[in-house]
Amino acid sequence: MLIEGRHFLAGADPRALGHKALAVNLSDLAAMGAAPRWATLALGLPAPDENWLAAFSAGFFALAERHGLDLIGGDTTRSPQVTIAVTALGEVPSGVAMYRASARADDDIWVSGELGSAALALTHPEIAAAAARLNEPEPRVELGERLRGLARAAIDVSDGLAGDLQHVLERSHVGALVHYADIPRLASFAELNDAQLEKDCVLSGGDDYELLFTAPRERRREIDALSRELGVPLTRIGAIQSGQPRLTIVDGAGKPMTFRGGFDHFAQR
Amino acid sequence: MLIEGRHFLAGADPRALGHKALAVNLSDLAAMGAAPRWATLALGLPAPDENWLAAFSAGFFALAERHGLDLIGGDTTRSPQVTIAVTALGEVPSGVAMYRASARADDDIWVSGELGSAALALTHPEIAAAAARLNEPEPRVELGERLRGLARAAIDVSDGLAGDLQHVLERSHVGALVHYADIPRLASFAELNDAQLEKDCVLSGGDDYELLFTAPRERRREIDALSRELGVPLTRIGAIQSGQPRLTIVDGAGKPMTFRGGFDHFAQR
Repeated sequence: MLIEGRHFLAGADPRALGHKALAVNLSDLAAMGAAPRWATLALGLPAPDENWLAAFSAGFFALAERHGLDLIGGDTTRSPQVTIAVTALGEVPSGVAMYRASARADDDIWVSGELGSAALALTHPEIAAAAARLNEPEPRVELGERLRGLARAAIDVSDGLAGDLQHVLERSHVGALVHYADIPRLASFAELNDAQLEKDCVLSGGDDYELLFTAPRERRREIDALSRELGVPLTRIGAIQSGQPRLTIVDGAGKPMTFRGGFDHFAQR
Repeated sequence: MLIEGRHFLAGADPRALGHKALAVNLSDLAAMGAAPRWATLALGLPAPDENWLAAFSAGFFALAERHGLDLIGGDTTRSPQVTIAVTALGEVPSGVAMYRASARADDDIWVSGELGSAALALTHPEIAAAAARLNEPEPRVELGERLRGLARAAIDVSDGLAGDLQHVLERSHVGALVHYADIPRLASFAELNDAQLEKDCVLSGGDDYELLFTAPRERRREIDALSRELGVPLTRIGAIQSGQPRLTIVDGAGKPMTFRGGFDHFAQR
């Protein structure tokens, strides 16, 4: 559920909004290895605005068509602020869906693409690669489908690496060690030379919609080959450990770092 | 999508709200002859309130369990006003779903239960039978499933008889003649002796969630038998006619009546 004033600003580009409202749902499907099939859309609007609706629909349907997804139902009503609720449905063969609860000790931890880009765009909207990730994230649908049978646990990074990985650890009853320097990020961070901003974005920034997944060590070569085939960077950033569901992130010197946890969906902002 | 201040008042009983949010969706499934299976729930709340959530959930799950429906996903977020978006999914055997577009000339027009009750409760909340229909409508799930193969077109009366029947006429490219005196309604209307209020409620009042359906004349005995078996009143109120998609409602003297049309979801209220 995306709500004006909370998830996006009043006056946000309706085409980008139509794209993103569907993209965040396709990202959830991708994290389970599901192929998108159908969606419903409930839309609350302050007034029926044909131009707004045309642009929103263009963004929504361009992404839907790219993934062969049909809009099969929904609702429209009047609402004090723009309110968007998309439900996406997908299909995955029995037995190969990826779950948060499937990580095992000694699994490698992988991420797709780069982390922290969307969060960087909040303070540096002039960096095009960052702004694109924030406004028009590309859900990793094909990657998710190809990870079936290869990855064990998976989740999409919507609330920030630290918070989302913590969900996996709690559901899988395992710990994790992550090497901060190994986490892929935009080259812009090096140029900005702001270590605190960089850490906040890379470890705790939300809205990237990259996939975070775990896989047995013996699947490394297959995963590297998949990365080359799809043209999607896939990077090992650490390993799952037995024991308490605790996340340890170490810096280049091997020293544990402090970091902010997940996104609080009820925080006052 | 149900929004505080538009579809219900601030401070509305959360248990009744949980029931109604699911009920209105089950009613849509019933109108197609589908058996409810799964639902998702997206909930926007001004603040996380445990008592409110417990009561809302009690209302939602009591109805879900009665129909063997599982909640399989959803979302929660902060919102300026309570906002509820339920997506319900059901199953119906191939070839027997009922559609708005399936009415044919000479079909009988039937309604379940009584019409105008929920609208009456807006001005007369002290009438218990009316208030119950407004606050905790019972979706006609079993009736919908049993009408498979018996009824042709169907719709649930959510926006008022005149407006909803008009949807069927437009999609089916037919007209209809309805006898006002034959429309079933609460006995309370006779006691109130307010002809204008009665007409507004019975013809144009929304939120009843009864089923309106058409069926060939030769199925009358089966439909009457089904009514007795289920203990649900099923009443013939008119007939489908060939020609333009025009709805004519006549009074006891056969004189055409004037009436208000359907509910405008974007009207300023």
